[in-house]
Amino acid sequence: MESWDLIIIGAGPAGLTAGLYGVRSGLKTLVIEEKIPGGAAADAPLIENYPGFPSVSGQELVAKMVEHCEKFKVPIKQFEKVVGMKLTGEKKLIQTEQGEYEASAVIIASGCNRRELNVPGESEFRGKGVSYCAVCDGAFFKGKSVLVVGGGNSAAISAIYLSNIASEVKLAHRRERLRAEEAYVRELLERKVEILWNTEVKEIRGDTRVRSVLLFNNKTGETKEVKIDGIFVQVGEVPNSQPAREAGVAVDAGGFIIVDSRQRTNIPGVYAAGDVTATPVKQVGVAVGQGIIAAMEAFGHIKKPYYYPG
Amino acid sequence: MESWDLIIIGAGPAGLTAGLYGVRSGLKTLVIEEKIPGGAAADAPLIENYPGFPSVSGQELVAKMVEHCEKFKVPIKQFEKVVGMKLTGEKKLIQTEQGEYEASAVIIASGCNRRELNVPGESEFRGKGVSYCAVCDGAFFKGKSVLVVGGGNSAAISAIYLSNIASEVKLAHRRERLRAEEAYVRELLERKVEILWNTEVKEIRGDTRVRSVLLFNNKTGETKEVKIDGIFVQVGEVPNSQPAREAGVAVDAGGFIIVDSRQRTNIPGVYAAGDVTATPVKQVGVAVGQGIIAAMEAFGHIKKPYYYPG
Repeated sequence: MESWDLIIIGAGPAGLTAGLYGVRSGLKTLVIEEKIPGGAAADAPLIENYPGFPSVSGQELVAKMVEHCEKFKVPIKQFEKVVGMKLTGEKKLIQTEQGEYEASAVIIASGCNRRELNVPGESEFRGKGVSYCAVCDGAFFKGKSVLVVGGGNSAAISAIYLSNIASEVKLAHRRERLRAEEAYVRELLERKVEILWNTEVKEIRGDTRVRSVLLFNNKTGETKEVKIDGIFVQVGEVPNSQPAREAGVAVDAGGFIIVDSRQRTNIPGVYAAGDVTATPVKQVGVAVGQGIIAAMEAFGHIKKPYYYPG
Repeated sequence: MESWDLIIIGAGPAGLTAGLYGVRSGLKTLVIEEKIPGGAAADAPLIENYPGFPSVSGQELVAKMVEHCEKFKVPIKQFEKVVGMKLTGEKKLIQTEQGEYEASAVIIASGCNRRELNVPGESEFRGKGVSYCAVCDGAFFKGKSVLVVGGGNSAAISAIYLSNIASEVKLAHRRERLRAEEAYVRELLERKVEILWNTEVKEIRGDTRVRSVLLFNNKTGETKEVKIDGIFVQVGEVPNSQPAREAGVAVDAGGFIIVDSRQRTNIPGVYAAGDVTATPVKQVGVAVGQGIIAAMEAFGHIKKPYYYPG
């Protein structure tokens, strides 16, 4: 079994940052990633609020972070899925589909997955007009008509991005106001994205692929069928916290890991950072800050330097 | 009196980030800065751990952040010193040397100043061989012999930076081990910086300028005089929290502002972010993350959107 000082689960902005700080602090540090590095940030068509990069694609930003980690020789194992953990002992055990590892401290930075609408047609037409990632699938909708569902930054950004590709972009939100930053809302209006307020998607219809959606107006009670070629679902996230939860890490009602201001979970030596935590602000800059604090706490826990409060 | 939604005090990484998020969220946001934007980060000769920038000078990084803020039209008033605050009412009053402002929320991001050694000769030879900023004053010591005092990242980075300029660099630390990241310690050794362990500076001596220091070894009890041309003091920080403290903001024993994980202080509508807070990890990435959270909390406090927990 491989033995490490610090194992970080997930290689999004939080995990990469924690890896960088772990290695630079002299900890024998390993980052384990289920897919390729980048996390949800890599799916963002456009990031305008990570300080230092006025406008950058998510892909480009995470590529820079990965490059930064490579410069400092942060070991990242990709395509390795964590299937179990034992965290309560002094040595933490991490089991993946490929092997077993032990470490003195663990940082869970496994992020979120996109939440689904859970309506008829959604799973049937997944990849046939139903998408959860504008930057991944947008190019398939050149000159077509698309609907984005959601009201937060991710939904607004996806609609802005798609307005460069599709001939028509609508944004459906179940409330009367968007949650997205006003700068994005202004851009939506400038780009003539039609916003459908108080609107819920009830069904996705089609034949070999999506042809229309059934929309319900929760204010007027009216239901109508609207023709579209594609639907981009951006209605929030579900945390990738299952193995941690099963190992006894405390989570909130939504399954997000509860941390204190030092990124500590309820289990000594186990930390969490980024979108998997209960912090409501899911932003790259926040993930970075939390990754740093988690790594420095893990360092304190392992090395017990004179200034560590314990 | 000028009226704003959100006033941010300090334009270092925390304040600039909060300004960016405030403006982008549609808040009428003002940043007030005593000097020029940048904060302590601007004095760092080298930053290798802000994710996305593998190696950058502090000046260059904060210039990019300022440019980022300019792109989104964040108003920054520079050379304006805050002299008083009234924070307990619903409207917060901020008094500067130039005028008066009111706001619905305030973020204190006023950072730290360098701590002094408090030894004889220190204030006498300030600017005559005694410096607190390697990047500001390093160039004056080309081919000379300098001593850096301290054991953390700032001390290590200053010594590395000075090793490119001075002919001889020594690093004096009062303990047996550095607190700096191991990556920096390795570089110190590669660059043949001599580390004087268990060593305290007792006096700075000279004529028209610094000529020597009196060093005390706290392990052997020995005192000796060592010839040097310059001394760079990097022994920690004192928070710029005085006006906030006087207005009732709770601080810890060191004067650092106490915040919860949502960056709230003890006064409703008043937040703090970055080096002025009690968070022990003083890093650009942490300041950025805290600036984001503080701005989003201020937004919630002012606009009370449906998703704000209150």
